[in-house]
Amino acid sequence: MKKAILVLAVSATLAASLAVADDAALRDKAKSAGLLPIPPGVPEVANNPITREKVDLGRMLFFDPRLSASGVISCNTCHNLGMGGDDNLPTSVGHGWQQGPRNSPTVLNAVFNAAQFWDGRADDLKEQAKGPVQAGVEMANLPENVVVTLKSMPEYVDRFGRAFPNEPDPVTFDNMAKAIEAFEVTLVTPGSPFDDWIEGNDAAMTDAQKQGLDLYIERGCSACHAGINFGGQDYFPFGLIKRPGADILPPEDKGRFEVTGTASDEYVFRAAPLRNIALTAPYFHSGQIWDLTQAVAVMGTAQLGTEINEQEAELIVEFLHALTGEQPRIEYPILPVETAETPRPDLSTLPLKGYGD
Amino acid sequence: MKKAILVLAVSATLAASLAVADDAALRDKAKSAGLLPIPPGVPEVANNPITREKVDLGRMLFFDPRLSASGVISCNTCHNLGMGGDDNLPTSVGHGWQQGPRNSPTVLNAVFNAAQFWDGRADDLKEQAKGPVQAGVEMANLPENVVVTLKSMPEYVDRFGRAFPNEPDPVTFDNMAKAIEAFEVTLVTPGSPFDDWIEGNDAAMTDAQKQGLDLYIERGCSACHAGINFGGQDYFPFGLIKRPGADILPPEDKGRFEVTGTASDEYVFRAAPLRNIALTAPYFHSGQIWDLTQAVAVMGTAQLGTEINEQEAELIVEFLHALTGEQPRIEYPILPVETAETPRPDLSTLPLKGYGD
Repeated sequence: MKKAILVLAVSATLAASLAVADDAALRDKAKSAGLLPIPPGVPEVANNPITREKVDLGRMLFFDPRLSASGVISCNTCHNLGMGGDDNLPTSVGHGWQQGPRNSPTVLNAVFNAAQFWDGRADDLKEQAKGPVQAGVEMANLPENVVVTLKSMPEYVDRFGRAFPNEPDPVTFDNMAKAIEAFEVTLVTPGSPFDDWIEGNDAAMTDAQKQGLDLYIERGCSACHAGINFGGQDYFPFGLIKRPGADILPPEDKGRFEVTGTASDEYVFRAAPLRNIALTAPYFHSGQIWDLTQAVAVMGTAQLGTEINEQEAELIVEFLHALTGEQPRIEYPILPVETAETPRPDLSTLPLKGYGD
Repeated sequence: MKKAILVLAVSATLAASLAVADDAALRDKAKSAGLLPIPPGVPEVANNPITREKVDLGRMLFFDPRLSASGVISCNTCHNLGMGGDDNLPTSVGHGWQQGPRNSPTVLNAVFNAAQFWDGRADDLKEQAKGPVQAGVEMANLPENVVVTLKSMPEYVDRFGRAFPNEPDPVTFDNMAKAIEAFEVTLVTPGSPFDDWIEGNDAAMTDAQKQGLDLYIERGCSACHAGINFGGQDYFPFGLIKRPGADILPPEDKGRFEVTGTASDEYVFRAAPLRNIALTAPYFHSGQIWDLTQAVAVMGTAQLGTEINEQEAELIVEFLHALTGEQPRIEYPILPVETAETPRPDLSTLPLKGYGD
């Protein structure tokens, strides 16, 4: 009986140390693969010091449909902060019920991307924020009309003045974008099971998630989807090994080629960031795949040239679920009141003005 | 010198007592006219006990665009809680960019209305909530599809279970409407200058607002726009004295006649509730008047048969601004995650399904 207890105790100790050793080794492996936790604090961005005034103003602008020509569409329409920071549509619906060409990327943790948009055509969030406001298929507005709209509301004038002190003319399209960037910088999702685990809490991920992480690295996913944001850092041809079907990779969308004009950039896209990926179906720039396991399998075939079998894909998906962090808790803003000078909503769809991208 | 001081002191006392007497008299007059403050606490509604679980669920549903067929339109799209509880459009934009027939009424304080919609066709908020979800020009969904959508998300199933305990099948279209009603019941705006003033704080309204209130009663506005919500209590022909032009009163919209079929209900509408009216331009069921002073003048001519001159209209508008209360501070809800069983968004506009009203 004593012997049996001793054996059990030794076994338990061995199992425990084995588990610890496994976690420690896997943690080293993950770090070596460049998989990083979300750093504490509010990230810094270039040329835009983050202040409380700017973040509060940006929160208003983010939710204000009057940035659109119609007065119907806000940033939050396509980057819904209650739905993982995107709209859960294949491609977004914009002005006049037009459907845009690409799947809406999440705004959550977007500050950690090296560049913005699927083709990286905006260097940062303040540059990005100007795009959809002007795009004819999105908010269809003109910068000068946005400025007239904002200047027509005394509360906005006051808030821009406080967010951009010492500027003679603070209500500008550029400052609108800077305020939105300041708000978006706060939209990070720490505290995911992966973050807790990589910081040393072995119990934060399940065994299946740990196996999935190991496979994620072994199969090569982390070659493109690494960094704080598990992607968003660099550009790769979609179909590096084998081009997927036209449903997933529509031939008319040549990706980064449209930005650079360089032949080698045909069908090149920014590696999608994978944080909160379990919240943001459907997947890929075309938004045609709703099932995450299927998306992982497509990646195996198209990018890695390896058949990831169903069991492996499911384990990787288990791990991807460990990338869902604490969603931002936002107070819905009370927006400034319109005045007689506020431009009227323009619902007309012909001719579309401000065709952007 | 002493005499001068004495005279001044007496004058000040007289002025003060005069002001108090004026306020007290005006307060009595306002109460006699049926103008009431927002009562403290959460209002009760019939057949729907308000619980924290139900309110929280209702908040999610109110902001969830997946109640619409497209996955694009939520209750908050047309009843924006950051914009006075409406959309600041002449008439709302719905499924397929269709424009609805009538101006979106505010959801704020709607619990105090005797019935819902411009024609009062819904007895209460839970009945009202079912309308836009099914209306082809609004959310264009079908009740059975809504239930499938809600049942596809485990978090909703769990929350319906807790909001409607002891029900064998809590996820129903009716319970969706009850939860939305429970949330909407909390959307009241106490603490307006009028409310503070009627409760005894003379300083809460300006002199101009008090003059405006007096005119509001004297000219007869309070005959239709009274009660807690300054309207929303009864039905009146628009153009009681003189029918306004077809731009303001489109001949094809016969109002309550479409509900009752009674000839005397032609062009009859529910008197608009006037709380927070300064936040909810444009005005009238047609949404064609953007200027509140002009709206007051139209009312004078159409309903009262009296020319309210511009100075009087401006004073009445000053008073109407005193009806802007504390706007509800709402945490933007994190919505349940979709699953493989969640119906896909249906963006198609032909054939429209679920044509309601």
